[in-house]
Amino acid sequence: MDLSKYPQINPPQRLLMGPGPINADPRVLRAMSSQLIGQYDPAMTHYMNEVMELYRGVFRTENRWTMLINGTSRAGIEAILVSAIRPGDKVLVPVFGRFGHLLCEIARRCRAEVHTIEVPWGEVFTPDQIEDAIKKVKPRLLLTVQGDTSTTMLQPLEELGAICRKYGVLFYTDATASFAGNALETDAWGLDAVSAGMQKCLGGPSGTSPITLSPAMEAVIRERKCVEEGLRTDAHHDGDDEMIYSNYFDLGMIMDYWGPERLNHHTEATSALFGARECARLILEEGLDNGIARHKLHGDALLKGIQGMGLSTYGDLKHKMNNVLGVIIPQSVNGDQVRKLMLEDFGIEIGTSFGPMTGKVWRIGTMGYNARKDCVMQTLSALESVLNHLGFHSTQGAAMQAAWDHYSGSRG
Amino acid sequence: MDLSKYPQINPPQRLLMGPGPINADPRVLRAMSSQLIGQYDPAMTHYMNEVMELYRGVFRTENRWTMLINGTSRAGIEAILVSAIRPGDKVLVPVFGRFGHLLCEIARRCRAEVHTIEVPWGEVFTPDQIEDAIKKVKPRLLLTVQGDTSTTMLQPLEELGAICRKYGVLFYTDATASFAGNALETDAWGLDAVSAGMQKCLGGPSGTSPITLSPAMEAVIRERKCVEEGLRTDAHHDGDDEMIYSNYFDLGMIMDYWGPERLNHHTEATSALFGARECARLILEEGLDNGIARHKLHGDALLKGIQGMGLSTYGDLKHKMNNVLGVIIPQSVNGDQVRKLMLEDFGIEIGTSFGPMTGKVWRIGTMGYNARKDCVMQTLSALESVLNHLGFHSTQGAAMQAAWDHYSGSRG
Repeated sequence: MDLSKYPQINPPQRLLMGPGPINADPRVLRAMSSQLIGQYDPAMTHYMNEVMELYRGVFRTENRWTMLINGTSRAGIEAILVSAIRPGDKVLVPVFGRFGHLLCEIARRCRAEVHTIEVPWGEVFTPDQIEDAIKKVKPRLLLTVQGDTSTTMLQPLEELGAICRKYGVLFYTDATASFAGNALETDAWGLDAVSAGMQKCLGGPSGTSPITLSPAMEAVIRERKCVEEGLRTDAHHDGDDEMIYSNYFDLGMIMDYWGPERLNHHTEATSALFGARECARLILEEGLDNGIARHKLHGDALLKGIQGMGLSTYGDLKHKMNNVLGVIIPQSVNGDQVRKLMLEDFGIEIGTSFGPMTGKVWRIGTMGYNARKDCVMQTLSALESVLNHLGFHSTQGAAMQAAWDHYSGSRG
Repeated sequence: MDLSKYPQINPPQRLLMGPGPINADPRVLRAMSSQLIGQYDPAMTHYMNEVMELYRGVFRTENRWTMLINGTSRAGIEAILVSAIRPGDKVLVPVFGRFGHLLCEIARRCRAEVHTIEVPWGEVFTPDQIEDAIKKVKPRLLLTVQGDTSTTMLQPLEELGAICRKYGVLFYTDATASFAGNALETDAWGLDAVSAGMQKCLGGPSGTSPITLSPAMEAVIRERKCVEEGLRTDAHHDGDDEMIYSNYFDLGMIMDYWGPERLNHHTEATSALFGARECARLILEEGLDNGIARHKLHGDALLKGIQGMGLSTYGDLKHKMNNVLGVIIPQSVNGDQVRKLMLEDFGIEIGTSFGPMTGKVWRIGTMGYNARKDCVMQTLSALESVLNHLGFHSTQGAAMQAAWDHYSGSRG
């Protein structure tokens, strides 16, 4: 093998303004470059306890079991679903974008009986629609997506916890895309489980999923407890129907590893934990509500700029996430060519879309470390340049002026 | 929340000489501190392709599907088992330590019919023992552990591939603890799947699992293919018995993400990938065989030193891994007190043990970045000091002299 073809890592400088991943906060990368310590070193278990406490702050919860899953955001989703869903359980999934379909898919893998309700992409559900479906389906779990990046929509969750309590339904939300950039009140909203990811508003690299579990969810999971070390005889090898389909995602074991017993399970991904700790620490230092307001400020400035450029936006703006905007690609330009020029000539990445929106919508994110004025202004300016270069004529400077006006108004 | 209690990360300096995790190579940590790029950025997909090629070199394979799982080493194990094992499949697991039990446990979660053979801890199997069991059980898969850190033993695998071919059995090994510190020839030995981890001889942080799959294993997995995006109707929701129990670990999907189609699945953990790339690059730069010889040199020097101190070792030394040694705790001292003094007063971590060896054996590793003379000499010197401080009298300096003699002999 000719190793001269593989020099040390040297990624190009990019401003990541898509739907995530976005640029990591340099302080997070520095925290991750700390040297390792052993997994049972008192310093390590202390850091694990700190991570639990810091994420309680970000999840707005008192839940004891607030911890990290060592995998990307969908690992957190799967850990919760595979641990909570027993084969044959009925689950209800309100689908308003791609990630609702993902919840259905994972639930099917868990051998759930999956029921869905749907709204057209670009819309969200009313609480009544969800309550009606709960009455009809009588599910054991309600599986929701808070913010679906595929459509940029934010499903209101405030009223769903009370509905779930009324019908004895466990209430889960996937907050990967929305977490820390939009309000989420785990306890006040009656959520039984929430999972998130690092690469959106948390400002870290993908690879870790913070989760939180209510006492009710803990009880459900504990009923399926399985102890790894037990040496079983041939008489046991058919197993128990109720045994969780995964060892890696068995939240009973993961609780025993994060809890005072410290029962050995996986070897906690130390660098990732250092990064996740720094993300939460920075968010709480800024103040969670201040951070959410910052996401709204820059998200709205981007929106004003895009509108000022004469472009149309996607979906119901009343229910848009703060941190990502769908922009209708003008018919006169090729969306992929615009993205290519943005990336190659300006070093700025904006996102494409999935499914029914493919080729029709760009998704532009303002999140985490990149929820900043300079990122918004650079992106608008570059997009105006590229669009005009390709023949879409907008009023010169109007986009940036609209953003400036928004910033002035918001400050004044 | 009083944030002054949560200062920036500042782990204590530790020399990690246990069974892993060990200190990461600083070059790996620096690679991981690079800024992020988008998951479909041409620079990112190029790095993904490079990682595949580099790990083909470390696995000694031509296998196309040589890639990373975003999770710790047991995530790699589970991805292979859950993707390959159909419910009811017979698997044979030769168990010679804790990690054999882990393979059984995960296989049971996959609803396999699990058959085991066992030898006492501290021993390994002969090829005949395994062939006899294959003839009797007629398994679809043979699941082995190459190096079981719980006992420090290394199972010889060279002859097992031919046996597996003869009986039409798929051959998997968990090389987490042994990979890159002991010979492993994926293709020459006829392995159909291998998984590894970063935190042992690869010299990186836990959190990523390199795997490789033979064409035969790929074919088995492709038969269970499931496309995520398909929107299913109520008529489908019972699913297919053969559907893999996991989305996150569905290797068919992960191949489609790493392959030219680049079908969206998880968001690759970019920082972890940068680190894994650097680990493989450094190993190939040193030369894989040179690196294995380095592990043997320092592992043997540690062994000579421990023997020179008058301590006994654990297990069959003919079958010891190069990178970890079991040391019998002398009856006159408390093993945990020794470990505590080593950690607190010398900053050196050595390992405890699991199961039947608890309280009886320390495990001392010389692996990855810490397979170095200075690490061996510091550890021996500190251990001599602590043992004598606690009343176990050894000849002053004998351990270090034995190690020096070994180094001189090996060089001369």
